[in-house]
Amino acid sequence: VDEFELIRRFFLQHEKGAGVEIGIGDDGAVVAPAPDRRLVVVADTIIAGVHYPPDLPASDVGYRAVAVNLSDIAAMGGTPRWMTLALTLTEADEPWLEGFAGGLFAAAREHDVALVGGDTTRGSQTVITVQLLGDVAPDAVMTRAGANPGDGIYVTGSVGDAAAGLSLLKNSSNREAHEDTTWLVGRFSRPVARVRVAASIAGIATAAIDLSDGLGTDLAKLLRASNAGGSIELDSLPLSAPLRRMFSHDQVQRFALDGGDDYELCFTANADDHERIGELAAQHATAVTRIGTTEPGAGLFCIRNGKRLPYEDHGYRHF
Amino acid sequence: VDEFELIRRFFLQHEKGAGVEIGIGDDGAVVAPAPDRRLVVVADTIIAGVHYPPDLPASDVGYRAVAVNLSDIAAMGGTPRWMTLALTLTEADEPWLEGFAGGLFAAAREHDVALVGGDTTRGSQTVITVQLLGDVAPDAVMTRAGANPGDGIYVTGSVGDAAAGLSLLKNSSNREAHEDTTWLVGRFSRPVARVRVAASIAGIATAAIDLSDGLGTDLAKLLRASNAGGSIELDSLPLSAPLRRMFSHDQVQRFALDGGDDYELCFTANADDHERIGELAAQHATAVTRIGTTEPGAGLFCIRNGKRLPYEDHGYRHF
Repeated sequence: VDEFELIRRFFLQHEKGAGVEIGIGDDGAVVAPAPDRRLVVVADTIIAGVHYPPDLPASDVGYRAVAVNLSDIAAMGGTPRWMTLALTLTEADEPWLEGFAGGLFAAAREHDVALVGGDTTRGSQTVITVQLLGDVAPDAVMTRAGANPGDGIYVTGSVGDAAAGLSLLKNSSNREAHEDTTWLVGRFSRPVARVRVAASIAGIATAAIDLSDGLGTDLAKLLRASNAGGSIELDSLPLSAPLRRMFSHDQVQRFALDGGDDYELCFTANADDHERIGELAAQHATAVTRIGTTEPGAGLFCIRNGKRLPYEDHGYRHF
Repeated sequence: VDEFELIRRFFLQHEKGAGVEIGIGDDGAVVAPAPDRRLVVVADTIIAGVHYPPDLPASDVGYRAVAVNLSDIAAMGGTPRWMTLALTLTEADEPWLEGFAGGLFAAAREHDVALVGGDTTRGSQTVITVQLLGDVAPDAVMTRAGANPGDGIYVTGSVGDAAAGLSLLKNSSNREAHEDTTWLVGRFSRPVARVRVAASIAGIATAAIDLSDGLGTDLAKLLRASNAGGSIELDSLPLSAPLRRMFSHDQVQRFALDGGDDYELCFTANADDHERIGELAAQHATAVTRIGTTEPGAGLFCIRNGKRLPYEDHGYRHF
């Protein structure tokens, strides 16, 4: 197969998608943005052996490539619309491509996202960049800046599961098909982007960030962008039952604070909005937990048993 | 340096750019599309050792990464606006990054394109994906489909130079610093996207494609998309003086017909518009040459000395 045939076979969909006037197959795509909306633009790359184990099932790779971008759109308060795929492959492995496309479109369909174009190339390593376009009402844009001292710090879902799942994947030789293991691995391989709950709190949150590098690292970024400090109560971190059952207290702590890949939403909001946030969380059947408070000054602190310690950054760095 | 510092140092610009409300540094960018315009979305990847020689100067790599995408926007009749950069590097080589960013922004500035976001990652090979957003009036969109039998086939600039330049680059050990050599190499390393002349003919052209894989291959794609056939007069192909001086007649022919990377615009238009096209070409100081005619039926044919032969596709394939 050449790359044109490959695109036709695996990536051309029957339906062009909402707002798509020209999709895959020309020099570029043409889409119709909604009037009175702003465009949100994100792009994230995942690389075999860097962002995921090379033997991760192809459908999970496809799902993840989209999900990490959905999560960025969510963190801006946006609604995902259209994406392009830049796919660098080591070979045209058809079963792999079929699985990959299946996972990619599964994630896309959950949010009515259309694949409108991209580029397929050959390289020495699998490198996947998805670029996602969303839209957002001008007054619903969330950024990392905007947290005010005294705001509550919130996080969706639970933290640490994905890092725990990845550690289980990497040691899969001695892994039994345990229910907890499967659940934790799934949290890594099929992250749930918090698109809908994020859009619902977009008018309320004062700042937001998605958790890709780890709660501590990412929350510290939000605080820096907001020119604020903050502290979190370690005992209030939302931890899943499988995580607590499978790992020691110290491991759980490390995964929850330093582990990346959760793709949960971390945000801040005025204390007056606490009740409203609870209502919205219930509406979207998504756990939203208050884990701390922003403060004047700078820096992130962790509190346990009344003891307050500066957070030491162990987040992932590429270089 | 970590990747955040790297982005701050090399890719953060003083000015956010027109229409950019939130640029680099948050989870995503927010831009304001012009009302009553459609959005054009393109994404192209270039890989060291695949799309360009690994020792190509970093500034040329940066320039090229943008130019190949500008060319796709041009082929749709669009005006480029905003881009993201997905940059996979083998190491954080600061002089290389400085050169790369210089070339990238040089190409961007020529068309007032703002870099609004992206992702920087580490891999085993340099892989660069630029995704470019442009806008276009709904009635000015050009596609590959739409050529009618009897339309003239046109091409901008000259063809074959870039492939010739690349062949000179690859054999640079025995290359003298000859003026013609430098010019041909420049046609490969710094392609000029035909953005403005393309926008000016957008209301006139019946179909358009940019030349990335080679004139024969790409024109055949346009004809297929238009359900038309066509023929080109080989003696009418626009050939640069340096190309003709440096290579044999047969080599020139092969570069012009099968050589990729020209990033010229190939388009079709009704014979009645021939004069108007000449005027627009003069206005934009860009050569536009009629090289053939579209026909009923299918397939691309080459005519020389009255002899008509089917075009045999030698264009580049990845797999």
